[in-house]
Amino acid sequence: PLHAHDHSHEHPHDHLLQAVLHTRARSVALVQGLSDADCTVQSMPDASPAKWHLAHTTWFFEEFILAPHLPGYRVFDPAFRYLFNSYYETVGPRHPRPQRGLLTRPPLEQILAFRAHVDAALQRLTREAAPASLLELGLHHEQQHQELLLTDLLHLFAQNPLHPAYCAMPGAAPGPMPAAQNPEPVRWVSFSGGLTDIGHADERFAFDNESPRHRVWLDDYALAQRPVCNADWLDFIADDGYATPALWLADGWRWVQEQNIRAPAYWQTHGDGFHTQTMSLHGLQPLLPQAPVTHISFYEADAYARWAGARLPTEFEWEAASRRQPLSSATPAQFADHPWRLPLPADDAATDGLQTFWGGVWEWTASAYLPYPGFHPAPGAVGEYNGKFMSGQMVLRGGSCATPPGHIRPTYRNFFYPHQRWQFTGLRLARA
Amino acid sequence: PLHAHDHSHEHPHDHLLQAVLHTRARSVALVQGLSDADCTVQSMPDASPAKWHLAHTTWFFEEFILAPHLPGYRVFDPAFRYLFNSYYETVGPRHPRPQRGLLTRPPLEQILAFRAHVDAALQRLTREAAPASLLELGLHHEQQHQELLLTDLLHLFAQNPLHPAYCAMPGAAPGPMPAAQNPEPVRWVSFSGGLTDIGHADERFAFDNESPRHRVWLDDYALAQRPVCNADWLDFIADDGYATPALWLADGWRWVQEQNIRAPAYWQTHGDGFHTQTMSLHGLQPLLPQAPVTHISFYEADAYARWAGARLPTEFEWEAASRRQPLSSATPAQFADHPWRLPLPADDAATDGLQTFWGGVWEWTASAYLPYPGFHPAPGAVGEYNGKFMSGQMVLRGGSCATPPGHIRPTYRNFFYPHQRWQFTGLRLARA
Amino acid sequence: PLHAHDHSHEHPHDHLLQAVLHTRARSVALVQGLSDADCTVQSMPDASPAKWHLAHTTWFFEEFILAPHLPGYRVFDPAFRYLFNSYYETVGPRHPRPQRGLLTRPPLEQILAFRAHVDAALQRLTREAAPASLLELGLHHEQQHQELLLTDLLHLFAQNPLHPAYCAMPGAAPGPMPAAQNPEPVRWVSFSGGLTDIGHADERFAFDNESPRHRVWLDDYALAQRPVCNADWLDFIADDGYATPALWLADGWRWVQEQNIRAPAYWQTHGDGFHTQTMSLHGLQPLLPQAPVTHISFYEADAYARWAGARLPTEFEWEAASRRQPLSSATPAQFADHPWRLPLPADDAATDGLQTFWGGVWEWTASAYLPYPGFHPAPGAVGEYNGKFMSGQMVLRGGSCATPPGHIRPTYRNFFYPHQRWQFTGLRLARA
Amino acid sequence: PLHAHDHSHEHPHDHLLQAVLHTRARSVALVQGLSDADCTVQSMPDASPAKWHLAHTTWFFEEFILAPHLPGYRVFDPAFRYLFNSYYETVGPRHPRPQRGLLTRPPLEQILAFRAHVDAALQRLTREAAPASLLELGLHHEQQHQELLLTDLLHLFAQNPLHPAYCAMPGAAPGPMPAAQNPEPVRWVSFSGGLTDIGHADERFAFDNESPRHRVWLDDYALAQRPVCNADWLDFIADDGYATPALWLADGWRWVQEQNIRAPAYWQTHGDGFHTQTMSLHGLQPLLPQAPVTHISFYEADAYARWAGARLPTEFEWEAASRRQPLSSATPAQFADHPWRLPLPADDAATDGLQTFWGGVWEWTASAYLPYPGFHPAPGAVGEYNGKFMSGQMVLRGGSCATPPGHIRPTYRNFFYPHQRWQFTGLRLARA
Ligand SMILES: [Fe+3]
Ligand SMILES: [Fe+3]
Ligand SMILES: [Fe+3]
Ligand SMILES: [Fe+3]
Repeated sequence: PLHAHDHSHEHPHDHLLQAVLHTRARSVALVQGLSDADCTVQSMPDASPAKWHLAHTTWFFEEFILAPHLPGYRVFDPAFRYLFNSYYETVGPRHPRPQRGLLTRPPLEQILAFRAHVDAALQRLTREAAPASLLELGLHHEQQHQELLLTDLLHLFAQNPLHPAYCAMPGAAPGPMPAAQNPEPVRWVSFSGGLTDIGHADERFAFDNESPRHRVWLDDYALAQRPVCNADWLDFIADDGYATPALWLADGWRWVQEQNIRAPAYWQTHGDGFHTQTMSLHGLQPLLPQAPVTHISFYEADAYARWAGARLPTEFEWEAASRRQPLSSATPAQFADHPWRLPLPADDAATDGLQTFWGGVWEWTASAYLPYPGFHPAPGAVGEYNGKFMSGQMVLRGGSCATPPGHIRPTYRNFFYPHQRWQFTGLRLARA
Repeated sequence: PLHAHDHSHEHPHDHLLQAVLHTRARSVALVQGLSDADCTVQSMPDASPAKWHLAHTTWFFEEFILAPHLPGYRVFDPAFRYLFNSYYETVGPRHPRPQRGLLTRPPLEQILAFRAHVDAALQRLTREAAPASLLELGLHHEQQHQELLLTDLLHLFAQNPLHPAYCAMPGAAPGPMPAAQNPEPVRWVSFSGGLTDIGHADERFAFDNESPRHRVWLDDYALAQRPVCNADWLDFIADDGYATPALWLADGWRWVQEQNIRAPAYWQTHGDGFHTQTMSLHGLQPLLPQAPVTHISFYEADAYARWAGARLPTEFEWEAASRRQPLSSATPAQFADHPWRLPLPADDAATDGLQTFWGGVWEWTASAYLPYPGFHPAPGAVGEYNGKFMSGQMVLRGGSCATPPGHIRPTYRNFFYPHQRWQFTGLRLARA
Repeated sequence: PLHAHDHSHEHPHDHLLQAVLHTRARSVALVQGLSDADCTVQSMPDASPAKWHLAHTTWFFEEFILAPHLPGYRVFDPAFRYLFNSYYETVGPRHPRPQRGLLTRPPLEQILAFRAHVDAALQRLTREAAPASLLELGLHHEQQHQELLLTDLLHLFAQNPLHPAYCAMPGAAPGPMPAAQNPEPVRWVSFSGGLTDIGHADERFAFDNESPRHRVWLDDYALAQRPVCNADWLDFIADDGYATPALWLADGWRWVQEQNIRAPAYWQTHGDGFHTQTMSLHGLQPLLPQAPVTHISFYEADAYARWAGARLPTEFEWEAASRRQPLSSATPAQFADHPWRLPLPADDAATDGLQTFWGGVWEWTASAYLPYPGFHPAPGAVGEYNGKFMSGQMVLRGGSCATPPGHIRPTYRNFFYPHQRWQFTGLRLARA
Repeated sequence: PLHAHDHSHEHPHDHLLQAVLHTRARSVALVQGLSDADCTVQSMPDASPAKWHLAHTTWFFEEFILAPHLPGYRVFDPAFRYLFNSYYETVGPRHPRPQRGLLTRPPLEQILAFRAHVDAALQRLTREAAPASLLELGLHHEQQHQELLLTDLLHLFAQNPLHPAYCAMPGAAPGPMPAAQNPEPVRWVSFSGGLTDIGHADERFAFDNESPRHRVWLDDYALAQRPVCNADWLDFIADDGYATPALWLADGWRWVQEQNIRAPAYWQTHGDGFHTQTMSLHGLQPLLPQAPVTHISFYEADAYARWAGARLPTEFEWEAASRRQPLSSATPAQFADHPWRLPLPADDAATDGLQTFWGGVWEWTASAYLPYPGFHPAPGAVGEYNGKFMSGQMVLRGGSCATPPGHIRPTYRNFFYPHQRWQFTGLRLARA
C-alpha cells in the first residue's frame, strides 16, 4: 500500500503525527477489558491474536520508520523482528502464522510497553526526518489491523460455548436494539454506463492497489437500494437455498458440502432448526429481520443473488455508483465508532438513494482481486503489502461496522478468499 | 457451452452428423495401441481414465440427444447414467470423481460397444428430430475430452518409472525432432488500444462463456513475438527464480514451498541437478532450447513474467491481438493433427507477426475466468457446462499441440486453476 | 520368515522344487478370467494390484535365490528390482506403495513372461545350488500373496457399483449355497490352563515369528464351539452396538465415528436400512445367518465380545486349544481350494469340539503382535520379513477361506492393524 | 482406576481428606508465576491447558463425589460439566479436546474460585457420606494431571522462540547443575526367571489396570544398571542411527521419515548440526552427558536398543526387578518434589543395584498395554478411566522427575502411543 504522491503539504507533520498517535491509542483502547489470555489465543490460522495485532502494527513503525529514519533509535527487543513480521519475505524469516497463538510470552503488558516505547520514539521524529508517506501508511495499516482485531476476537469468542461478549467500551452502553420489523421491498436504483474512470485520483492517501486510475467501460446497470437482510436470507434458507446445487458455483457447492454449511457463520441453530439468534461482539443477540445479513462467504452471496434472479455488482459498478452516494460527515454510515458493533438496519430508509451504502457490511462484488492496468508495487518490503495477494481473492467494497471511521474511501478495495466469512461481509444485488 | 443462435442452415444436417461421427471416430483412434489397463487407471483426481472419457462423451449424446429426441432409442446400459455423468447435478447422483479409476469393469471393449451403439443411433436421427445445436455441442464436448484424454495419459505415463511412450498413430512416425538452437531474442509487437468488442459475434458455434459480446477498454500494449522458451526458463532457474519469494504471488510461493516445485512438470532432474530431458507423449525427449516451455502453472507463468520485467497479457489483449493473426488454414499452428504431440519451435520465425500464436501451448493470461457482462447459462442440465466453474480459475487462450484442429477460435476461453499444470500450458509476455 | 533348521531331508530337492512350481502355477490360475485392467488397479494403499503380487513374488525368487545362487542367471529386467521390491530396505529403494496401481506397464502378459522366465530358471537349480530353506520361504511367501491377491481383488470389485463377481475357476461352479437357518446357540468348550509351551517346535517350515518356542502360563479358559455368525451380528446391530460408546475401545470408538462404520465391510444397506446381502468374490450374495461373520475389524470384534459378556481369546489360548483340534486331512476346514470363496457355515456342527476352527475366517485374538522371548530376525534382507512389523498390530489365528491349503499350522501368526478389515476376519468368543 | 478393596481403615477419613486437600493445594502451587495466558493455550491436541487441568480435576470431585454424595451441594457452574469432562461418554457430551485451548473464558481466577468452592465442600463431607475409594481415586487422578500439566507446559514453552523457563517454585532455586562427565559403562544386573506373580496385591490404592494379580512365566534376564544417557544417544546419532532403516520398526521408520526426526524432542540443533542444549522446564539447558536421555518415543527407544545389541525389558521383567529395588524413603529417586524438573544423573552410582530406577524418566517397556487376565473395569463412568485405552499403546514404568512423590508403585502401569514423546520418557536396556 503506497500512495503515489507526496502530499505532506496537506498533512503537515504535526497534524500527521497526532493522527498516527491518536490511531495508535485507539488500538490499545480496543483491548480494554480483555484478559491477557483473550489477547493471546488464535482460534484459526486465518485469525491472529489481539496481542499479535498490537505488536505487529508497532513492529511496522519500528521496522520501516524508526529504525531507518530516527537517528539513535534503540530497537525495543531484537526478537520481535522475527516474532511480529507478518509476511514480509524481504525483511526475513518469521514466526509461522499458524503458531501465533502459542506466544503466551511476551505477555500483553510487555506488548503495551513496546507500544509506548515506539510511540515515544515517534514523537521524537522531526519534521525533516519523518517519511510522511510511510507514516500515513503506518496509520492506515494500523487501522486495518484494528478491524481484524475485532473480527478475530469475534471468531474466538464464537468458539466458546459460554458466548462471551466483547466489551471494549466501558461506560458506553450501546443503547437499545431497534425493534424487529420487515425490511422494505427491494427497489432498483439505476445508473448509466459509459467509459468510466476508476481508481485513485486525488492527493489523499490510498493504497497502491487503488492505482493507477484507468478507464473501464460500463453498461447501464441498477443496484438494490438496500443490502440483503436477515429476513431475505431466512427466505433463501426456507426455499432450500443451501440444498439446491443449481444455485451454486462448483467450488461453492463443494465448500457447502464439505463444511456442512447451512446458514451464515455465527447463526445459532435451535432444537427446532430455526435461527433466531446470532453470536456477535455483544454476545448472543436476536436476529433482526431488517438488518443486513453478515458473515457470509462470496459463494453464499453469489448463490443468493442467483436465487434472487439478480447478480453481484462489479467493483467498478460499485465505485461508479459511489459518486451518487458520496461519503461525507452527513452521509449515514455505520463504522467502528458506533456503539453497536454489529450491522444495524438503515437509518436512511427515507432516502431515495442507496441505503447503508457505507459501513455496516462489506459488500462482496463480482470482481476478482487483480492488478489495475499498469499497477506496480512499490520497491522494497512495503511493495509486499498488497500486490502479492492478487490471486484467488474477490473484492469487497464499502467498509463495515468494524472499519475505523476515516479509513474508507470510494476507491478502497478490500479482498478475501471466496470461502472466508469471519469478516462483516454481506451483499447488495445488482442487475442490468 | 451453448451457441446462441440456431445455425442449422450453415451446417446442414448431413454435414453436421458426418462431422460428429468423424470426431467420434477420432476419439477411438486416440486409444489405438493402448491396453485396457492404460485406459482404466486414474493417476490423480484431476485426471480421468481414457475409458472414462470415451464413455462420458458417449453418455453425453445418449443423455442429452438420443434419449429425449430419438423415438424408440434403447439406453445401452442404465448403470452408465450413474457411472459416466461427470458433474451434472441436474441429471442426478454420479460416481465420485476420485474413484473413476476403480472401474475395471466395464472393460474397454464394452465401452467401445457402447460407442458403436450410440453412433448407430445417431445415424438414425432424422433431420427433423435432430437438435442441431446439441449435436454441435456434443461434437465440441467430445473434442475437449480428446485433449484431456491426451494430457491425462501423459500424466499417467509420467508417473511410471519406465517412461512409456504414448503411440497413438501407428505407421505415422513423427519424423526427426528439430535441431537444438537458441531461441531468437524477444521482439515486441505493438497494438493500439481503445474501445474493443470482445466475445463471440458470428453464427458459428461457440460455448456460452464466450458471450455476450461486449465492449472493453484497452490501453496500448505490446506482446512478445514468441512464447517463452525452454532456454528462457533455464535462465530463470539459473537465476534462482524458484527460490526468490519477491517474484511470486503469495499463493504461488506457498505452492512452490509445499510442493517443492523446482522446474516445469515432467522435466527430469539428473544427478548434477541439470535438466536436459522431459517426459512427453513420446516418452523421454531432449529439452529443445527454442521450443515453448510447457507444463507450467499460472503461478510460474506470473513469476517468470515478473522476473523478466514484463507481465502476462489479459485475455482481452490476446483476443484483440488475434485479429492481426487470424486463424486460417494458412496460419502456422500446431494442433493435435501434428505427428509430434509436444510443443515445437516456431516454423513461422521469419514472419514479423506473432509466432506460434495458435496451438503449441495454451497461453496463461492475467484474466480471472469470470462471466462476461450479461452472461446467462442455458436452462437445464447443459447450463452446468461452463458457468458454474467461474470461480478461482484463470483464462488461457490459443490452443495447444493436443487441441483438435477446428476446435479453437479467437474468442475461445479455456480455464484452469492457477496451480494446475498437466495441460500443455505456457506463456507469452506482454507489456505496456 | 525363516525356518530354523535345514530339513532338506524331508523335502528332497525334487519334491520341494515341484511344490514351488505347483504353488507358482496356482498363482497364475488365480488371475484366469481377469483382465489386464483388473490386475493393474490398486483400490487403496493397503491393497496391491494382482499384477503386482504376481511380479513381486517372482522378484522374490529372482532376488533371493536365482541371482545369488544360479550361476549364469540372467535378470529378466533390471527395472523390476525397483518396481517390485515391497519393503526390503536392505535391497534398496523401491516404487512407492501407494503408486503400485499406476503401473499400467509392464502389461500382464509381460509379468507372465517374467514368471515363466523365473520358473524355467528355478528348474535349472541343481540340488547342490538350491538353498532349500529359501525355496521353502519363497513358496510360503507366494502363498501369502495368493491370499492377499484375493482379498485385494474383492476390495477392488467392492468399490465398483456393478458388483462384479470374481470368477477364477471356470468350469468349477461352486454349487448351491446352503439354506439359511439359525445358528446353533453358543456352547462353551473348556480347557485347562497351566504352563504351556507355545511356538514352533518341529522340523517343518515355519516363519521366524513363530519362534522361539517358550513357556506361557495360562489360567483355565473356555472357547465358544463356533465363530460369531451373521445372525449374532445382526442382533448386535439391532441392539445399537455401533452406537454404544461403552462397548468400544477409545481408538475403536473414534474409528467408528470418523469412518461412519455401521456394519461389517461389504454389507449392503437397503432403503429400509436392513442388511440382507454382502459383496463377495461371487458378487452380491445373501447374508447367511449361520455363516461366520467376516470383514470386521479388531475394534468391532472386541466391542462385540464385550457386548456378549465375553472376551477374545489370547493367541496362546488359541494355540493351546488347537491341540484338541489338530489340523489333518480329516479335519473339517474351508481353505482356498473350496469352490466357495466366502465363509460357509460349519459342516462339522455335529461334533462336540470346536467348529470351523480351521479356515473359514481368521479369528482375531486379544494378543498384540510382539516378538516371542528371544526372537531374532534372520540376518540380511529376509530378516525384514516379519520382525519389523511387530508394532501396533494384533494377532489372528486359524486361516480363512482364502488361505491356500497347506499354508496354515497351529503356531501360525497372522497380524493386521486393529482397524483393518479387508481380509476374511472374524472372531470366536472366549471366557474364563 | 479403582482399588479393589475398601481400606478406609488404613486411611481414616480425616487423614484421607487432608491428603486430598494437600494434593489439590499442590496443583494450584504448580501454576504460581504463570499468567492466565500461559494457563489457557493448548499447544497441540495431545496436550491440555493448565487451566483445563485445574478445572477438570475439580470437576472430577464435583461430578463423582460432591454431587452424588454431599447433600445440598450446589454445583459451581452447570456449564462446567460440558466444558471440563474429559472423555466420560457415560457423563455426556463434552467440549472437543482439540478446542480446549480456545476457552479464554472462564479466566484462571474463576477456575481458582471453582477449586476453592469444591475444596470447601469437600471439607463438609462427613465420615459417613464420604466414599473413601472415590476420594482416593480423585487424589491419584489429580496427581496424574499434575504431571501432565508440567509436560504440557513444557511443550507449550518449547514452541516459543523465546524459550521461556517455567518457574513454579519461587524462592526455591534448584541449585547448580552437576558438572558434565561421561556416564559409567553399562553393567548388567541379572535376575532369575520362573513363575512370577504380577499385579497389585496389597490393600493400598492402585488403579484397576494393575489387577488382577496373575502369574507370568519369566526366563532369566538382565537389566542395565543405569538408563541410557545423553552421551549414549549422541553416539547413536553419530552412528547414523536415525538414518539406518534396519534398526527401526516399520511404523517407526515411517514416523522418522514423515516427521523428519533427527534427535530427541526439545534438543536444539545449532549451525554445525551438533546438539549441546535442550529445552526444559528451566528454559534452555546444557545437555548433560551422564543424565538419562528423555523425550524419546517408543520407536526411538526400540531402535536404540537394537542398535545397542540389546532389547527393552517387558513390563513384567521390570516389575519383578523392582522387588530388588523397593521404593522407600531411603531409595534414591527423583520425583516432582525435586527442585530440578529435568532428569538428573544418578546420585546412587555407587550402589551395585539399579540406578535411577525410580523417577527421573519413565522407562519404555516392550509390553503392549493390554488387560491383565480377568480384568474388568468398574461399573459406571469411572470404568472408563483406564480400560478403554487398552489398544495401540505401550507400557512405561517407574515414574519421572515430573511424577508427584507418592504417586508411583511397583505395579503402576503408565501408557502412551509409540510415537508420543512429550512426557519425560527414556529407556533402560535389557537382555537375556
Ligand atoms: Fe500487517
Ligand atoms: Fe464433459
Ligand atoms: Fe511380499
Ligand atoms: Fe482426567
